[in-house]
Amino acid sequence: MATSPTNPSSRAVGTVAIRWHGHALELLDQRLLPVDEHWITLEGASSVAQCIRDMVVRGAPAIGISAAYGVALAARHAGGGDWKAEIKQAIRELAASRPTAVNLFWALQRMEQVFHECHSLDEAVGRLASEAVRIHEEDLAANLAMADHALGVIRPDKPISVLTHCNTGALATGGYGTALGVIRRLHEENMLQTVYADETRPWLQGSRLTAWELAQEGIPVTLNADGAAAAILADGHVRWVVVGADRITANGDVANKIGTYSLAVLARHHKVGFMVVAPSSTVDMSLASGQDIPIEEREGTEIREIRGVPLAPAGVKVFNPVFDVTPASLIDAIVTEKGVVHNPNITGMRELFG
Amino acid sequence: MATSPTNPSSRAVGTVAIRWHGHALELLDQRLLPVDEHWITLEGASSVAQCIRDMVVRGAPAIGISAAYGVALAARHAGGGDWKAEIKQAIRELAASRPTAVNLFWALQRMEQVFHECHSLDEAVGRLASEAVRIHEEDLAANLAMADHALGVIRPDKPISVLTHCNTGALATGGYGTALGVIRRLHEENMLQTVYADETRPWLQGSRLTAWELAQEGIPVTLNADGAAAAILADGHVRWVVVGADRITANGDVANKIGTYSLAVLARHHKVGFMVVAPSSTVDMSLASGQDIPIEEREGTEIREIRGVPLAPAGVKVFNPVFDVTPASLIDAIVTEKGVVHNPNITGMRELFG
Repeated sequence: MATSPTNPSSRAVGTVAIRWHGHALELLDQRLLPVDEHWITLEGASSVAQCIRDMVVRGAPAIGISAAYGVALAARHAGGGDWKAEIKQAIRELAASRPTAVNLFWALQRMEQVFHECHSLDEAVGRLASEAVRIHEEDLAANLAMADHALGVIRPDKPISVLTHCNTGALATGGYGTALGVIRRLHEENMLQTVYADETRPWLQGSRLTAWELAQEGIPVTLNADGAAAAILADGHVRWVVVGADRITANGDVANKIGTYSLAVLARHHKVGFMVVAPSSTVDMSLASGQDIPIEEREGTEIREIRGVPLAPAGVKVFNPVFDVTPASLIDAIVTEKGVVHNPNITGMRELFG
Repeated sequence: MATSPTNPSSRAVGTVAIRWHGHALELLDQRLLPVDEHWITLEGASSVAQCIRDMVVRGAPAIGISAAYGVALAARHAGGGDWKAEIKQAIRELAASRPTAVNLFWALQRMEQVFHECHSLDEAVGRLASEAVRIHEEDLAANLAMADHALGVIRPDKPISVLTHCNTGALATGGYGTALGVIRRLHEENMLQTVYADETRPWLQGSRLTAWELAQEGIPVTLNADGAAAAILADGHVRWVVVGADRITANGDVANKIGTYSLAVLARHHKVGFMVVAPSSTVDMSLASGQDIPIEEREGTEIREIRGVPLAPAGVKVFNPVFDVTPASLIDAIVTEKGVVHNPNITGMRELFG
């Protein structure tokens, strides 16, 4: 049997949400933060898929990493019978867990490719675990590179304030974070005044996760209702809105957490920079534009109640899209580990992503 | 002693939140909706001020009406001593309850004027109660007139969808509602497809009050997170964003519930109409522009927790302004009972409000 590769999270920066132990995957249950820090141990691909579906783990890169480990677990725990069919079924199940973030499909494709090269279960166990770890490690490295590139775009000459949405930190990635990685870097360079964090309804990633993550590291954060972002931008203190992405299409359109598009319109209106930070695994050159991205809708209970407390009349109709699409024309820079696409369009995207 | 004037709420349209009984005022506790329908009985001005401060009653017109009844109660229950000082003190206390909505000060000014004309406590008891009832009745009449004016602006030739923010219905007014009154009228005329209602964080007036009010009357409503409004407007189904106001200045700037300004920017970006509906008691010609309006900030606990359930790390810094200012340049029409100001500016405002 293959040796257990090192847990990449031991080298991560920030509070990680994914721990790999070779025989099992541990996920920090992000549904319970910031009240409880509870870890769930998973030994099979089905339970990983369930955790992605139920948002135990969330954030496009973290979903991709978790799914990769899910495939590794499927190999590790495959029965003596048709191990190839078992792994294929695991990949199918993981692929069906959530529809919008492309990192999931990207990671599964990488795992599938390695899988197809394996001639024995033993080989598959070893190589799939190594590949999952590599995906995890590469994501961390990509985050660090993106922070470098982003600082080159922002070029702060004095501490600035930024506004962010959702959670794009260590919890959402292999460590450090995408948009929140840029914010971490600004803080490390003493160039961060404060981060305004949208609470990010309905799932409250901003208040539950981003505020928690930043507070743990002493990074100055001010939490606000999503509806207050416009007043904050009008105030003139924020220089950049910095967000992550769940899928970026060939023309530079970006799907990200619901509310992102609103910020992009507001940033343009107030002449504030709008930066999208995401690894190249988020880029989907097979889709021409954002209109082609499947947008997940989740249950109305996310709006109608919170932790069982009713907030609205029972059964009232709800429109609850999880993501929206920001057109490239409203984006000043897409920052990836491969480099920066300024004022993104199909030409600029092709130059960097082929 | 004066006779008890009729309770104007008996003629109101929609679920009212204010009942007048001559010797006491009853307020529907809007903090508990939609879970509990609990009425609070008040016999003094201090308790009315407390209810305004604590948002038992909210909505600019409803605050003004409640405060007027508070003055009437102060007269009714004045001791045998210096009744004038008691009433003056009540007016001061009510005026200090909330800072942004001008209807409060407008209503108190009307009450004070009547008070100054009174020569005996008996006269004050009667005349102040009558004046409060008149303010209440006029508000209801104004709402009905505004709905007429608004339909003249919208002139729907087929059922349309609209988007609204906060609660501006019967609960927020003397009955029928301002923006929600327009929506009621559209529904009565079979010209309403659906209302998208922003849930309106942090206080959730949209989900707790608007959805409840509309559902009770069978008016089609779809609830959404505030951050989803941009995606809804981009979709092209919504023709008008219709909101209320807490204060309108001489140049046509509008203070309203936090998140309103965001909608105004989004409406303009998507070429959707943006209409403000408010009684003339909301207009404050003494202020040159929205920059002069005092914007109330409330406690961070409104963002950090909900009904005692923690949503964010304890003690995390919060920016929680209750209102924002929408510049006149983003508003297509201000609709009052006195008429409509199209593309508001100082000239148009002066023509209607002198």
